[in-house]
Amino acid sequence: MKKITISVPSSVANVSCGFDVLGFCLDKPCDEMTVEIKKTKGLEIKIINEKSITTDPKNNVCGPVAFAMIKKLNLNHGFHITIIKKIKPGSGIGSSAASAAGMAFAINYLTGNTFSKLELVKFAMLGEEIASGAKHADNLSPVIFGGFTLVRSLNPLNIISLPTIEELYVIITHPLIELKTKDSRQIINKQISLEKAIQQWGNLGGFVASLYTKDYELLSKSIDDVIIEPQRLKLIPNFKEIVDAASKYSLGSGISGAGPSIFSICKGEKNAELAMDTIRKITDKKKLEYNLILSGVNKDGIKIIN
Amino acid sequence: MKKITISVPSSVANVSCGFDVLGFCLDKPCDEMTVEIKKTKGLEIKIINEKSITTDPKNNVCGPVAFAMIKKLNLNHGFHITIIKKIKPGSGIGSSAASAAGMAFAINYLTGNTFSKLELVKFAMLGEEIASGAKHADNLSPVIFGGFTLVRSLNPLNIISLPTIEELYVIITHPLIELKTKDSRQIINKQISLEKAIQQWGNLGGFVASLYTKDYELLSKSIDDVIIEPQRLKLIPNFKEIVDAASKYSLGSGISGAGPSIFSICKGEKNAELAMDTIRKITDKKKLEYNLILSGVNKDGIKIIN
Repeated sequence: MKKITISVPSSVANVSCGFDVLGFCLDKPCDEMTVEIKKTKGLEIKIINEKSITTDPKNNVCGPVAFAMIKKLNLNHGFHITIIKKIKPGSGIGSSAASAAGMAFAINYLTGNTFSKLELVKFAMLGEEIASGAKHADNLSPVIFGGFTLVRSLNPLNIISLPTIEELYVIITHPLIELKTKDSRQIINKQISLEKAIQQWGNLGGFVASLYTKDYELLSKSIDDVIIEPQRLKLIPNFKEIVDAASKYSLGSGISGAGPSIFSICKGEKNAELAMDTIRKITDKKKLEYNLILSGVNKDGIKIIN
Repeated sequence: MKKITISVPSSVANVSCGFDVLGFCLDKPCDEMTVEIKKTKGLEIKIINEKSITTDPKNNVCGPVAFAMIKKLNLNHGFHITIIKKIKPGSGIGSSAASAAGMAFAINYLTGNTFSKLELVKFAMLGEEIASGAKHADNLSPVIFGGFTLVRSLNPLNIISLPTIEELYVIITHPLIELKTKDSRQIINKQISLEKAIQQWGNLGGFVASLYTKDYELLSKSIDDVIIEPQRLKLIPNFKEIVDAASKYSLGSGISGAGPSIFSICKGEKNAELAMDTIRKITDKKKLEYNLILSGVNKDGIKIIN
């Protein structure tokens, strides 16, 4: 096998009460990524329909992932990488994670599948590091494992696949402003109150339990972020208005990743459609442009197209 | 029905990563509590074999629980309460919670079972408040619901019954010093680092997941308290030495409630016996006296004897 084309999905991280640990994978949007063995060393990166991303292998998220794998596998060749970018950079649904995860997945496939999913996340984290300034795995894990994932620990890396409820659908409300993860991280206090932390881990425990028991009422109650969201919501245009509007049909909403997108989780596709209609009534009145996406939860993660 | 005798179990709260939210019920020790309708108003409390506890209804934990229920039910009679106290006060395995929960359970039973388990916890919390200076439910919930419980939220009160793994056994290592919950709470910092909080809620998510999946390796990894234990361990004589000794046969250990007892969770009764032997080799060498208890996880909670 000399060439592979994959569909690499977007994802939601920092899911409400699960800052830095809880994420899930979306059915769409997905990047299309083609990786081909190149006889000579080095990487050649092409990005179709997105000009804001560097194609310099040293600065593109694919670079450090590929170089680390090439070194580990002791390869004497390089790769051609072509990305049709459909996940908008800086939108908060794991654009950089998709490229990093896709890179790790593709090289693993083309070189005989020697690494575990956990190892692929580890390689891909090198890409996330240059994108956001911090090693994190809460977008990468759902892209590589599929469904809902919990990053229990970063050091040593421990990822838990949580059950995926097929009836869950998600609305992504994406205001067309760019918010850098680095900037969005900087405004967060490094000290928090124990009282709020207790509320947060109570909710995270509830969220995890609700996935195992399909308890939608509990899931809904547990989507409550008392620590990060209050600090970040000022960065997200019309956050409260959108969340309030969605609440009639959704189980809960929150900031997707580091923002500016908002996720709203709904029970069933019909409710998701109604939530999207209600959100659109708000966003249509604003000067700012919004992209609205309706997606299922993707339980498989990256898919091989060719 | 004019009289009831119940067996009211001990419990472990603040289970490692689940400070203030996670608890489980023990098979033993149990208090025996007899509650009988008294024709005249007021409470009469007798405590057998424990002199340190006040029998004044205003200051005994049973008092506020009973008075609130009497008022709510508009009763024109009182209760005789006799407690054979086997759960040592101040040991950290829910001695006051047992009395408060038993009181709520018994009055509910004698007056026609009109309250839900959740409501019983709410009444019993009035007793915990005078015992520890704070309303908390993480010992009460497992005593009333049985098994492992998560107090997702205190306000409004929301309790989740988690699965109980029957193969789990627990060693309680109780150094015979008394530690008041109030004092043990006072030394805890009210501000914590976000970084540690993320580790803690990652572990709590892992712990909850491990109960659903019976994943002992994950359970073991998740028993890791990076916030409270480091602050409190100086209050617990020989904590590290005991935990290290137990670790050969246990999945993990931590401070039970506010201490001074230590819990060690083991897979299977045989491992629990081996862990207890290993701990005993340490404690036998100390001047301080220790009580060691081997117990299963009690999935039923309070039991009616008569």
